[in-house]
Amino acid sequence: MTLDDTHDPALRSWVASAQAEDTDFPIQNLPYGRLRPRADPQAPWRIGVAIGDQVLDLREAAARGRWDAATAARLAPLADGDLNALMARPSAERRALRAALSAALAEGSAQQAALAPAVAPAAAFEHDLPCRIGDYSDFYAGIHHATAVGRLFRPDQPLMPNYKWVPIGYHGRASSLRVSGDAFPRPLGQVRGEGDAPAFGPSQRMDYELELAFYVGPGNARGTRIAIDEAEEHFFGVGLLNDWSARDIQAWEYQPLGPFLSKSFASTLSPWIVTNEALAPFRRPFVRPAGDPAPLPYLDGAANRAAGALGLQVETWLQTAAMRAAGQAPVRLSQAEVADAAYWTPAQLIAHHSVNGCNLQPGDLLGSGTLSGPGPGQAGSLLELTVGGREALHLPDGSERRFLQDGDRVVLRAHAQREGARRIGFGDCAGTLLPAQ
Amino acid sequence: MTLDDTHDPALRSWVASAQAEDTDFPIQNLPYGRLRPRADPQAPWRIGVAIGDQVLDLREAAARGRWDAATAARLAPLADGDLNALMARPSAERRALRAALSAALAEGSAQQAALAPAVAPAAAFEHDLPCRIGDYSDFYAGIHHATAVGRLFRPDQPLMPNYKWVPIGYHGRASSLRVSGDAFPRPLGQVRGEGDAPAFGPSQRMDYELELAFYVGPGNARGTRIAIDEAEEHFFGVGLLNDWSARDIQAWEYQPLGPFLSKSFASTLSPWIVTNEALAPFRRPFVRPAGDPAPLPYLDGAANRAAGALGLQVETWLQTAAMRAAGQAPVRLSQAEVADAAYWTPAQLIAHHSVNGCNLQPGDLLGSGTLSGPGPGQAGSLLELTVGGREALHLPDGSERRFLQDGDRVVLRAHAQREGARRIGFGDCAGTLLPAQ
Repeated sequence: MTLDDTHDPALRSWVASAQAEDTDFPIQNLPYGRLRPRADPQAPWRIGVAIGDQVLDLREAAARGRWDAATAARLAPLADGDLNALMARPSAERRALRAALSAALAEGSAQQAALAPAVAPAAAFEHDLPCRIGDYSDFYAGIHHATAVGRLFRPDQPLMPNYKWVPIGYHGRASSLRVSGDAFPRPLGQVRGEGDAPAFGPSQRMDYELELAFYVGPGNARGTRIAIDEAEEHFFGVGLLNDWSARDIQAWEYQPLGPFLSKSFASTLSPWIVTNEALAPFRRPFVRPAGDPAPLPYLDGAANRAAGALGLQVETWLQTAAMRAAGQAPVRLSQAEVADAAYWTPAQLIAHHSVNGCNLQPGDLLGSGTLSGPGPGQAGSLLELTVGGREALHLPDGSERRFLQDGDRVVLRAHAQREGARRIGFGDCAGTLLPAQ
Repeated sequence: MTLDDTHDPALRSWVASAQAEDTDFPIQNLPYGRLRPRADPQAPWRIGVAIGDQVLDLREAAARGRWDAATAARLAPLADGDLNALMARPSAERRALRAALSAALAEGSAQQAALAPAVAPAAAFEHDLPCRIGDYSDFYAGIHHATAVGRLFRPDQPLMPNYKWVPIGYHGRASSLRVSGDAFPRPLGQVRGEGDAPAFGPSQRMDYELELAFYVGPGNARGTRIAIDEAEEHFFGVGLLNDWSARDIQAWEYQPLGPFLSKSFASTLSPWIVTNEALAPFRRPFVRPAGDPAPLPYLDGAANRAAGALGLQVETWLQTAAMRAAGQAPVRLSQAEVADAAYWTPAQLIAHHSVNGCNLQPGDLLGSGTLSGPGPGQAGSLLELTVGGREALHLPDGSERRFLQDGDRVVLRAHAQREGARRIGFGDCAGTLLPAQ
């Protein structure tokens, strides 16, 4: 990834709120979401771009703007709500569209008058998932999470012998993915009982998991593989993912084939996909702790090392039902640096996933695994923050948490910032746990 | 499931080959597949019904036949290749369409002249997957397989303590599912090495797994669940599934989150879905071995017990490249009774999968898990037949197998028969292992 004019921190938009210091969506960001006007529930879904506290509606923009033929062709599927069509295109085309949108939204653009009617407040739109997700795979790249959880289950061997070699992952459930704002009932299931027989009922150990969502670009044909140094080309962008987990169901079901119903009841995604291009200024060197093995050759390449790791800060916030009723804002439970938390880069996950000939398709979702930093207050799950439920968290409403309670709302946030670049963010990824049905 | 006129063993079709003793597709079967004429690769996909060695092309049949309004409405999406639309309908509608097709294909039908041009040899069609598969979940319901494999990995505890309580399953990869006739390269991957470091290269322990493919009907909304006694309504039909497995990749990667790249390179499905209705005459009582626990209430219901288990015979056949070159037919490696092999019924798998609120959608695929009988020559994988590669199988071409070799073609077959019913079959589910790329 190289930087271009769209990353210039001095670039300003004619959408005034994009200049706000604390906005997640300055003109340097330009993330994509799938949405439609709340006022018209019959309106077709379309792709929009967040800009300040507004949205550029690409259905309106395609119709009202003046675009060269190549840009018009790229906008056409987006006007119809199909982000996968853009994801399938080469990165050069994705960069060209970004440049066209950046120019159109920049101060002084000749398009301002034509496009102003295509801009409306973000609150005027409802969101769907940002793209069609054919397959969802969830990785386990958070090494401090893997170590902490492993310690609870296997004190003698927290990290498996394969951990530093294999980007561990498993297949997830695509049908129950929902966009931020979702609410879902506490799942029922089997849990370990007193004797041989299990108990059955609502999970008593409900948890969240703070993850990044990596979206696949063009992908590969089945039977071929994506080389590590080509993997950035197939890394479309990033969202937030809450991989809700029922720890008691998981502990009883997961041997020998892994988590299943402990995860498949719901997973929540943020509405916006921040593109790989937007994140270019925030890359960091990919470093391995001293003494750790070098990645195998298929996971190690000059271009991958040059592209580096993601530089992002991630946070978890909690708002109980009582806090909501009292008008109290969510409280932050954790924050972590992704570069500290993730043992593998998105490119390594893509290269690994396809090395056996498995075909990745545009819009496929790769979860990072829970992202926990090495220090206190940096863990991306309650399981870690409460040491398996043994140490309660004390909340501003006077209650305490070992696991989630009904009505709890969990909000994931992320942003990228560094000297000399405009800070960009991801918006909220929020979900609420309802009582069991 | 109750029997009706479509099951009458005396029923004959005006398609002569449907009367052949050994056909898989008498008029009592009527499975659905997605296909198009080989002569016209631009032709749209459509649904067809196998009848003897012919296919009733529902695109042609919808246009040429005389159908009442309700039947015409059910045929319309099938004419456009959309089986999911039928899968989403209540079983009463699925039964009504089966009755209409049975009547139209029966000897003496007034539709014979109109529909004769809609019937063409099966060999004249190419197949796609029979439906859109949103999510693929793979279960582990074959108890003799689970015991035999468990013995290889964990001699002290072949079956986990959860096995007889939880229908163990995990999420599979949907993108690499292909229809019978597929060929794919031997996968590359990490395998356990001599020291701490793994080795990397083509899998040396390639295997097949003989499974049934259960297709979901209407399904459930997320946050709701399918009660055990309603689960048959959501069980659309059955195909064959080869869950190809790279045992050496699996052994190194599967802890702690289960199989991933050891499976996701390819899975092969049979072209035809034999409907739940067609299998009604072959149901058997659902019995648990003496001393085994009764299923928990959410997995146990009067209607489920009345519907019973599937009565099917399944077989694996192998043809090496040398056998193929010499004109030798495949040799049978195993056969087993599904009722002996499967610890859970399809209805139990459906009820379990949705008990946590996970939404099942029309066309979703549930693999049964490898179906092995309790006796010798009944195991549905090489891992079992060769005791983890320790005992070679001797083949008619003079070669031996511990695991699959390049060029090996594996064919899965199944049929249902009993006194007083017409035997029905599934057609071949064939796939070929190619050299690593």
